[in-house]
Amino acid sequence: MQGALIAVDWGTSNFRAYRLAADGSTLDETTGPDGISTVPPGGFPAVLARHFGGWRAAEPHLPLVMAGMVGSRNGWSEAPYAPLPADATALRERLHRVALEDGGEALIVPGVSGVIDGVSDVIRGEETLAIGTGLADGIILSPGTHPKWIEMRSGRIARFQTFMTGEIFAVMSEHSLLGRLMTASAGEADDLAGFDRGLDLAEHPAGVTRALFAVRSEVLLGRLPAAQARPFLSGLLIGVEIAGAKASFGLPKSMTLLAEGAKAVFYERALARHGVSARRMAGDRALVAGLRTILLG
Amino acid sequence: MQGALIAVDWGTSNFRAYRLAADGSTLDETTGPDGISTVPPGGFPAVLARHFGGWRAAEPHLPLVMAGMVGSRNGWSEAPYAPLPADATALRERLHRVALEDGGEALIVPGVSGVIDGVSDVIRGEETLAIGTGLADGIILSPGTHPKWIEMRSGRIARFQTFMTGEIFAVMSEHSLLGRLMTASAGEADDLAGFDRGLDLAEHPAGVTRALFAVRSEVLLGRLPAAQARPFLSGLLIGVEIAGAKASFGLPKSMTLLAEGAKAVFYERALARHGVSARRMAGDRALVAGLRTILLG
Repeated sequence: MQGALIAVDWGTSNFRAYRLAADGSTLDETTGPDGISTVPPGGFPAVLARHFGGWRAAEPHLPLVMAGMVGSRNGWSEAPYAPLPADATALRERLHRVALEDGGEALIVPGVSGVIDGVSDVIRGEETLAIGTGLADGIILSPGTHPKWIEMRSGRIARFQTFMTGEIFAVMSEHSLLGRLMTASAGEADDLAGFDRGLDLAEHPAGVTRALFAVRSEVLLGRLPAAQARPFLSGLLIGVEIAGAKASFGLPKSMTLLAEGAKAVFYERALARHGVSARRMAGDRALVAGLRTILLG
Repeated sequence: MQGALIAVDWGTSNFRAYRLAADGSTLDETTGPDGISTVPPGGFPAVLARHFGGWRAAEPHLPLVMAGMVGSRNGWSEAPYAPLPADATALRERLHRVALEDGGEALIVPGVSGVIDGVSDVIRGEETLAIGTGLADGIILSPGTHPKWIEMRSGRIARFQTFMTGEIFAVMSEHSLLGRLMTASAGEADDLAGFDRGLDLAEHPAGVTRALFAVRSEVLLGRLPAAQARPFLSGLLIGVEIAGAKASFGLPKSMTLLAEGAKAVFYERALARHGVSARRMAGDRALVAGLRTILLG
C-alpha cells in the first residue's frame, strides 16, 4: 500500500521509524537501540539507510520527518528552538532540513523553549507528543527521566515545566546514603504502601530536601520497612512534582497522561489525591499523530 | 598539667581526641582518618589505644566521653537515641558504656530522635554540638552533607530538621545530567553570581525538582555561563533549605552557624536575604564544650 510519510522518533537511547499511510495507519515499522548517543559524528544518514533504505528506494519522494534529540546539539544537526506559544503551524514553519545519502532530505521538528515563572525551560520531542494528543485545551503529562507538564491553550503549547523526578530518583537510589538502605521489592502491597507514605510527605512544610531524609530516619527507627523505602522515594518525588505543577498551572479535573503500565498506575494514584483523573494515551501513538499533523496539517 | 577528661569526636570518616583540663582548655590533641567506616569489627578499642594509650597510662582514671557515629548501628556499639526534648542532663543520664582494653570504660553520648512536623528525624553528634554552643534559646545550624537545624528552648534541644542539601549537591554534581555541563570555577565573582542566581530560584512556585532543571536549560540557552552552574546548584539547594527551615521554624534575627571558611560565607550570604545574621562558632570548639558540659554539667 502506498505511503504518505516516514515518521521517525529518534531519542538519546532508541530509534523507531514508521511508514505511514495517508490516514495515519502504520504500514511498516522498524526499531533499534540506535539512539543518538550511539551514533558517531557523520553517521546519522547511514542509520536511516540501514533501517529503511528499502522504503526510500520504493517510494523516494515520501516526506521524512523526525522528532526528538536527533535535533539537539548532540544529535544530527541542531534544530533551533521555537518560542512559546507554539502550534503545529509554527513548528511546521521551522522544520529543520538535513541532507540524506540518496540526495533527498529529512525534516527535524524543532524543540520549544520559553521562560515560564521567571526561568527558562526547554522541550525536544514532547512538543510533537503534545500536538499528537489532539488536545486543544488542557494539561498533558509526559513522565520519564525528566517529566514534562505541558499546558495547551487553543491548540497551542502555551506553557510547560520540566521536573527532574526520574533522574533524582535514579541518582539518589544508586548513589546516595538512601539507596544503601533500600531492599528489593516485597510485592505490590508493600510497593503501594511505601508509595502512599511518600505521597503523604510530599507537602512537608520544610520541603523535599528535608522530607528525603525521612527515607533514612523512618527505616532507621523501624517506622518504615526497608522494602518500602524505594517506592516511598518514588511517591515523595512524584507527589512533589504534582504539588509543584499544581502551584504553577492549577490542576484540572482531568488531564492527559502519556504513560502505560506501572508508571501510569502510580501517577494515576498520585493524581487521584488531588481529585484529578487521567486519560491515558500511548506515547508512540501521540508521536506518530504529532509528526503527521506537524507535516501535513 | 593534670587532665579532667578525654573528649572524642568519632565520625564516619574522621577521628579526633582531646585531653582537656578542668577549665575546658586543650592539653593534648590527636587526630587521624580513623573514621568508623575504616574500623573492622571489634577494632574500636585498639584505635583508642593507638591514639592515646599514653594519656590513659599516665592518668588511668580520666573519664573518656565520645560523640558521633561511633554510637551508631555501624559504630562501636549502638547508643539508643534520647527522645525530644533533650538537655545535657538527659544526655548524661543516657550515656552508653563500652569496655576498653585496659579494663576501663568509655561513655558514648546518645543521638536524639523525634517526630517533627509529622515525620521522624535523627541526629547523632550534633546534639553535642548544640549543647556546646551554650545557646539557651534560638536556632543552630550545622551545615554539611546533611545539614541540621536545631531549635533550643530553655537550654533543651526542642526540635530539629535534617536537610539532604550536601548529599544532593554531591550526587547531582557527580552523577546527573546537570553535572556533565558544569565546568570548573572561573573565580569568586562567577561563584557568587551563580550562587545568587540559584538563590533567586529557591522559592520557584513549581518547587525545587522543577528549578533543578533550570541548571540545564539556562546553560543550554546561553543564559547562565557553564562556570556558574555549580555555584548555581549550591545556591538553589541552600536557598531551598533555608526556605524550608523558615516554613518549619520561622527564622530569628540572628542564629548560630557551626561553620567556617567558604561554607560559612555562602550560608551567611543566603541567610542575609532573609534578614538573618549568623554568629559563627567553630565546630570543634562546640564539640569539646558540649562533651564537657554533658559529662560534668
